[in-house]
Amino acid sequence: MNFLEKRIARDGIVKEGNVLKVDSFLNHQMDIALFDEMGREWKKRFEGNKITKILTIEASGIGIAAVAAMHFKVPVVFAKKAKSINLEGEMYVAEVESFTHKTKNQVIVSKKFLDQDDRVLVIDDFLANGCALQGLIQIVQSAGAAIEGIGIAVEKGFQPGGRMIRNLGYKLESLAIVDGMDPATGEITFREQ
Amino acid sequence: MNFLEKRIARDGIVKEGNVLKVDSFLNHQMDIALFDEMGREWKKRFEGNKITKILTIEASGIGIAAVAAMHFKVPVVFAKKAKSINLEGEMYVAEVESFTHKTKNQVIVSKKFLDQDDRVLVIDDFLANGCALQGLIQIVQSAGAAIEGIGIAVEKGFQPGGRMIRNLGYKLESLAIVDGMDPATGEITFREQ
Repeated sequence: MNFLEKRIARDGIVKEGNVLKVDSFLNHQMDIALFDEMGREWKKRFEGNKITKILTIEASGIGIAAVAAMHFKVPVVFAKKAKSINLEGEMYVAEVESFTHKTKNQVIVSKKFLDQDDRVLVIDDFLANGCALQGLIQIVQSAGAAIEGIGIAVEKGFQPGGRMIRNLGYKLESLAIVDGMDPATGEITFREQ
Repeated sequence: MNFLEKRIARDGIVKEGNVLKVDSFLNHQMDIALFDEMGREWKKRFEGNKITKILTIEASGIGIAAVAAMHFKVPVVFAKKAKSINLEGEMYVAEVESFTHKTKNQVIVSKKFLDQDDRVLVIDDFLANGCALQGLIQIVQSAGAAIEGIGIAVEKGFQPGGRMIRNLGYKLESLAIVDGMDPATGEITFREQ
């Protein structure tokens, strides 16, 4: 097991309905030293990729992307999920359905912050059905920018998002891929990488 | 002018209605090297304070708090603005009214991540009327934790939030305090610190 799998095995909590709670270190309380190690690992995995910008989505992607960006030395843009009165001018908009919240959101990025010269690394905390990720990819394509890769902390390998993204040819680096969880025993099975 | 005031003077955009747009480096696109410098500055200003945890609020506080936390070597907890089905168990809840969005939100932090032994540094990107900050303070008090200080990137000094917080006796360190803005000329006046 790598450092993130070990942490998930130790502190992740498995609930009924394929819910994996990692809120003590990943998406409510954030272990910044862990995020730093994740950033270092992605930097290694995307060594050959020339990246100009990191794109993530609010809210739980932001902390991971910001700390990871210390290793890439590029700006981070975070997509917003709702239209803000402070967000004016031309925007890229994609519609995204959240698996967790059962709601549709518009994912919005200002056109000022992504253009055809950008080579984008997309970072997010979770990949399950991949709806948020599809919205982010749509936005990068609308900008005419290139997707250099996708970095995910925790992929739920038994849901279709990861396979779909790999089938589309994207370089997807999930630091932990969960292939199964047992809410009765709390046991988590990781995919060999 | 300090490093942040210089950056605001260069890249901030003044709009009618006392709107200061800093979305190219602070709260939509994020300049991580700038955040790192902000973290270093807060670390200096809170040198004598023993801090065990940083508390912020989604979404635009998260990136700043996460990078700042690299200097404090403590975990970050971000308060959520809406109830999530993944957020179960006991929670601290405070009601907050957003000046920007004209809506009321519940600010929520899991009781697991704040307790009476915590000495909290609250970090956020903006302070204007101080509604979000009041919600965060309420939550820290509900937890029986201590507020060691409050770090704000940009305070609008002509709105009442900052004065109210200082009147309450909190150690508030705003890295830039805007005392006036002229939408006709784009000129921004900073308070001498």
